Amino acid sequence: MSRQIEVCLSPVMVPHYQMAGRIVVVIDIFRASSSICYGIDNGAHAIIPVATVDECLSYADKGFLLAAERNGEVVEGFNFGNSPYSYTAEKVKGQTVVLTTTNGTFAIQQAKQADQIVLGSFLNLTSICNWLIAQDKDVLLLCSGWKNKFNLEDTLFAGAVVHQIKKSFSHFCDAAIAAEDLYLQAQSDLRGYLLKSSHSQRLKELNIENDIQFCLKQDCCQAIPGLVGDRLVDIK
Amino acid sequence: MSRQIEVCLSPVMVPHYQMAGRIVVVIDIFRASSSICYGIDNGAHAIIPVATVDECLSYADKGFLLAAERNGEVVEGFNFGNSPYSYTAEKVKGQTVVLTTTNGTFAIQQAKQADQIVLGSFLNLTSICNWLIAQDKDVLLLCSGWKNKFNLEDTLFAGAVVHQIKKSFSHFCDAAIAAEDLYLQAQSDLRGYLLKSSHSQRLKELNIENDIQFCLKQDCCQAIPGLVGDRLVDIK
Repeated sequence: MSRQIEVCLSPVMVPHYQMAGRIVVVIDIFRASSSICYGIDNGAHAIIPVATVDECLSYADKGFLLAAERNGEVVEGFNFGNSPYSYTAEKVKGQTVVLTTTNGTFAIQQAKQADQIVLGSFLNLTSICNWLIAQDKDVLLLCSGWKNKFNLEDTLFAGAVVHQIKKSFSHFCDAAIAAEDLYLQAQSDLRGYLLKSSHSQRLKELNIENDIQFCLKQDCCQAIPGLVGDRLVDIK
Repeated sequence: MSRQIEVCLSPVMVPHYQMAGRIVVVIDIFRASSSICYGIDNGAHAIIPVATVDECLSYADKGFLLAAERNGEVVEGFNFGNSPYSYTAEKVKGQTVVLTTTNGTFAIQQAKQADQIVLGSFLNLTSICNWLIAQDKDVLLLCSGWKNKFNLEDTLFAGAVVHQIKKSFSHFCDAAIAAEDLYLQAQSDLRGYLLKSSHSQRLKELNIENDIQFCLKQDCCQAIPGLVGDRLVDIK
């Protein structure tokens, strides 16, 4: 057994990591990967991640729900934004949602060579960990970061995954070791730990504290959102 | 007062950071930045960092000492390699050394837009921290990493600097926060902490344990190696 876990701390470092033959877990905790896990878990038929509001608009009038948000406000004419609270069963069950997300979509595009792309969040932490263990492949945890830079919340989640699956793996890169140690330091109070992050200050200005608290809940979802074509569907 | 510290965890992320107007500290703990700090502190007139053995060879017969090492062995025809033990006063005092280093030289090249590039290592930790505080500029700590990926030892040093200078700064990126927390976790036994790193396994194969121990010594040097033209000289 010589399975490997690597953690890539920013999508701009992707060209230096092997994708082929691996499962890549795309992480964008605040809030794309959390909202997508929650929406798929609540019975959304599929979620299509796109990079721009214009790209999202190109799906108008095709029976899709359109989700676009800029600066914390739902863009005019769209059904809803990026808040996980928009992805309840009542709103998304049986629907296909087109979602704009800059950091998350860029990370997904960078990982196209992977055997399988899946999305991870604290909401489906244990579920995705059990699924990863069962796949018998090397794993790359890909943090979307913030504007191509490192961020704490994506790294903490990567560390949580490393901590939960490492017994089934034998090789770990330095970033996996660092992510796990940061997670172990923060795990008793993730919200408190993140209060000191620069990103958290920025999020505070967006007035989405409820979303942040929700995105840090663990194990309320079982879905494994995986990319099939251009769509994320439950591949569990 | 609104001075900022950022930490860039890999040279490939440099395009996403501001360089102009800032001091950039290039970090390559095992072993380029450590050997350079030690050599300059021991009275080397200058050290010229180059990327390749061929580039190093182009300085032959000009009165320089040539340092090149590949796979832990001094390249044939060169005066010495990258071990800090080659940079004693006896060997380098009054001399100009041309040194090949892949990760470190790449990082220096990436930071060319900075107001001033300096080299940091545990050997000159307190000295460079005091110097940074006195400059009254924003600081970017640039980890050379390993083959463009994150490594633990450069990040731990960045964290040590953040820890020592943060009272004079008011803004910190997420990577600075993470680096400091990792350093605080590791500081009581840096060598022990690094034993679990993948890089450490690789270094063990190179049989340079004495060099590693030496590179983790704190505050045995006062030099501030700064880039002036293509040369590193003491700018203290």
